[in-house]
Amino acid sequence: MPLAPTTASPALVRRREALHARLATPALFAAGEAPSRNYPANRYRFRAASHFSYFVGRALPASLLLFIDGRTELFTHPPDPDDALWHGPRPELECVAEELQLDRVRPLVELDAALAPYRGSVATLPTQDAATQELVSRCLGREVRAGTGAALASPLDAALADAMIALRLVHDDAALAQMRFAAAVSAEAHVAGISATKPGKTELSTLAAMLSVLRGAGLEDAYGPIVTTHGEVLHSDRYDHDLRAGDLLLADVGGETPEGWAADITRTWPVSGRYSATQRAIYDVVLAAQHAALAVCKPGGRYRAVHDAAKRAIVEGLVLLGVFRGEVDGLLERGAAALFFPHGIGHLLGLDVHDMEDLGDRAGYAPGRTRSALFGDGYLRLDRDLAPGMCVTIEPGFYQVPGILDDPRRTESLGEDLRRDVLARFSDVRGIRIEDDVLITSDGHEILSAGVPKDPAGIEQLMAAS
Amino acid sequence: MPLAPTTASPALVRRREALHARLATPALFAAGEAPSRNYPANRYRFRAASHFSYFVGRALPASLLLFIDGRTELFTHPPDPDDALWHGPRPELECVAEELQLDRVRPLVELDAALAPYRGSVATLPTQDAATQELVSRCLGREVRAGTGAALASPLDAALADAMIALRLVHDDAALAQMRFAAAVSAEAHVAGISATKPGKTELSTLAAMLSVLRGAGLEDAYGPIVTTHGEVLHSDRYDHDLRAGDLLLADVGGETPEGWAADITRTWPVSGRYSATQRAIYDVVLAAQHAALAVCKPGGRYRAVHDAAKRAIVEGLVLLGVFRGEVDGLLERGAAALFFPHGIGHLLGLDVHDMEDLGDRAGYAPGRTRSALFGDGYLRLDRDLAPGMCVTIEPGFYQVPGILDDPRRTESLGEDLRRDVLARFSDVRGIRIEDDVLITSDGHEILSAGVPKDPAGIEQLMAAS
Repeated sequence: MPLAPTTASPALVRRREALHARLATPALFAAGEAPSRNYPANRYRFRAASHFSYFVGRALPASLLLFIDGRTELFTHPPDPDDALWHGPRPELECVAEELQLDRVRPLVELDAALAPYRGSVATLPTQDAATQELVSRCLGREVRAGTGAALASPLDAALADAMIALRLVHDDAALAQMRFAAAVSAEAHVAGISATKPGKTELSTLAAMLSVLRGAGLEDAYGPIVTTHGEVLHSDRYDHDLRAGDLLLADVGGETPEGWAADITRTWPVSGRYSATQRAIYDVVLAAQHAALAVCKPGGRYRAVHDAAKRAIVEGLVLLGVFRGEVDGLLERGAAALFFPHGIGHLLGLDVHDMEDLGDRAGYAPGRTRSALFGDGYLRLDRDLAPGMCVTIEPGFYQVPGILDDPRRTESLGEDLRRDVLARFSDVRGIRIEDDVLITSDGHEILSAGVPKDPAGIEQLMAAS
Repeated sequence: MPLAPTTASPALVRRREALHARLATPALFAAGEAPSRNYPANRYRFRAASHFSYFVGRALPASLLLFIDGRTELFTHPPDPDDALWHGPRPELECVAEELQLDRVRPLVELDAALAPYRGSVATLPTQDAATQELVSRCLGREVRAGTGAALASPLDAALADAMIALRLVHDDAALAQMRFAAAVSAEAHVAGISATKPGKTELSTLAAMLSVLRGAGLEDAYGPIVTTHGEVLHSDRYDHDLRAGDLLLADVGGETPEGWAADITRTWPVSGRYSATQRAIYDVVLAAQHAALAVCKPGGRYRAVHDAAKRAIVEGLVLLGVFRGEVDGLLERGAAALFFPHGIGHLLGLDVHDMEDLGDRAGYAPGRTRSALFGDGYLRLDRDLAPGMCVTIEPGFYQVPGILDDPRRTESLGEDLRRDVLARFSDVRGIRIEDDVLITSDGHEILSAGVPKDPAGIEQLMAAS
């Protein structure tokens, strides 16, 4: 497995120039620091903040990037001989400037003075860790908040957020090279996971096989991996169930490159190597929903329509299976889809697995559009018109969640048209999700995660061969 | 691979009773929360604070344990039906109380009122994350600091720290079961790493093989793994070097159980499967240093003497190889050992890989003992008299660090007695470390990490077989 590509400095320079062209004020981006785990010196592996990575392409802890008067300057700790003993030699600041084609790289201690003349007019974005929040607040002379879009109270910061959204919504070639790599390796991890699954083993053994592929290619987890026979627990983080022959195993696992670009793939396969007839029937409904959603994935398609297409296909399929009785439009109006597909069809994908979620719905929702108040639809993270270069996930699912199906508030609108006797026949389907990473192209879309099969025959064949 | 054992509640109760017996005031322990990674909802995997885990044995985020008037009460978020959709059902508070044999489990919102009558007299220990720091500070009505032992400014908190140190220095059977499991799996990971190493592959491929074993058994990394051909970079976190036939590969990798108990093992093996004559010669010096150190690992042995024994053996060995010229005592006085072995011989091991490092040298150093001011010795993390039930690492090493050997401040005391012409013959040895996890027993010690070979013949045999 080759290593991830490295974004060359000309691509980084182009991104910086594109931001300069949109900026009316100076802007400061912090890389952040690795948070501590059980004691201060034992830290999680450092992951630079995405807005910083977008322009720097390297994970430089405790560094800040300043856009000012048309120049781009990096502030960071200079190499320290005593530190070299523990962490190895680091390049001199001039070398960093040259390699990354930055106008200047300066010692971090100079940041305060450099900002002083501009205090009050420097835009920034929410930081992740408390130490960085404190540093940036001090340097800017105002309280910078951590957290989501709600923190963008300052009009300065909101304007910077909008500029970043405009840039990061559409991926350049360097970004796509990163995302193609992340998706290819993550697909390979799924192939390894499918191949490693056997009755009598545990969820952990499949997880380990998948992570081994990611780590072997230098990828970290883009998010907490889900590998579970209890697919109905949407964000399950347990891996301790035994794999039994009748189970489906749902794996939602994706890596990110050292620069931070993410993949996000889900497959659901039978532990035994063969879907039961009932599992296969529901799987086909979910797959049809994905096809229906993908049909809307083209320039000008609205993402809410992608979501609606999937909902419709799921209800149509469940009507054919007899789980719902009645006419599809009416069932949809009565909230039928969310009973079994309670989440959104997907989200933006990029440097974050939910790209730019730190900016809140300002990133995911086009101006003037807001979240639905309905159960299910309200979880949709994205409602923009699709354009070439955007990357999204398409991830329909079917889940039997007791907390939904046993809750009269959720089911009463369906009444007897939810045929529980029929549903009972599908008790061996707890949860199915099929998720791909989709790039919008000039004439449609391209599936970046095509390296792992999703048709039932392909999955069964892979399992039979291993 | 079986899963890690679970500490049964009677063992947890005994630990709580032991603390109650030492407490003059109420005490509050926070589990903490998972810090965010690139955006707020994308969190690192939760790891409960060690002092909390010691008494609760389960990773319950955003929970606090209160020792008060002889009772032990847990405060946590009650199960929430809406949360169950995403994270699965959680047990009712009464069930948690019963399972963990706690006097009471109460909703988190009651904590403030429960503490009100005792405000000003409740002891606590440093928290890790900022959110928890804020919560505890608010509930206790005083600023609680994050970070190391320096934060123990309050005599209340210092007394609690001393009580915890007394408890956690000596491991009970339940703790040892956890540590034995962590060490056994981590040793197996090393076996897998040794077996997976081949010229032409990369550090990443060996890392992936090792992590696969850890994850497959449900273990997280107890610390950032080191897998490098540049062993002279003591805390290397890069994995991108190719494996070449002449290289040594140094792997310092250890897992921790879901309850948080750690292992910490280092092995150094030849990429080709055969140590060169020069590599073998230095390896034997480091191995002899480990044997010399282990000979002092028994009740009553002082850990500084363990360190000194390793230093002496390293200098003796290097004199025999001709790297140093002169008499061992004199060379040691002139700082010879730290030129090639600049770190301490080891540290406490337990719920933290550097156990209780959050409490600073108060944990590692017996009262009245302080760190040496000398280069090398000053990095020794532990100087206590060893007692049955204590667990330590023993990890001598030899490194050719340019930042040391090219620094006249470090080498001038040795003058010509450091034979650089002889040293040049050992240029294929960048870094070697051999590290085991050692339990002090009533009549000596037991090596918990014995499942992976460390004698050169055993390692070569393992590589030949794979």
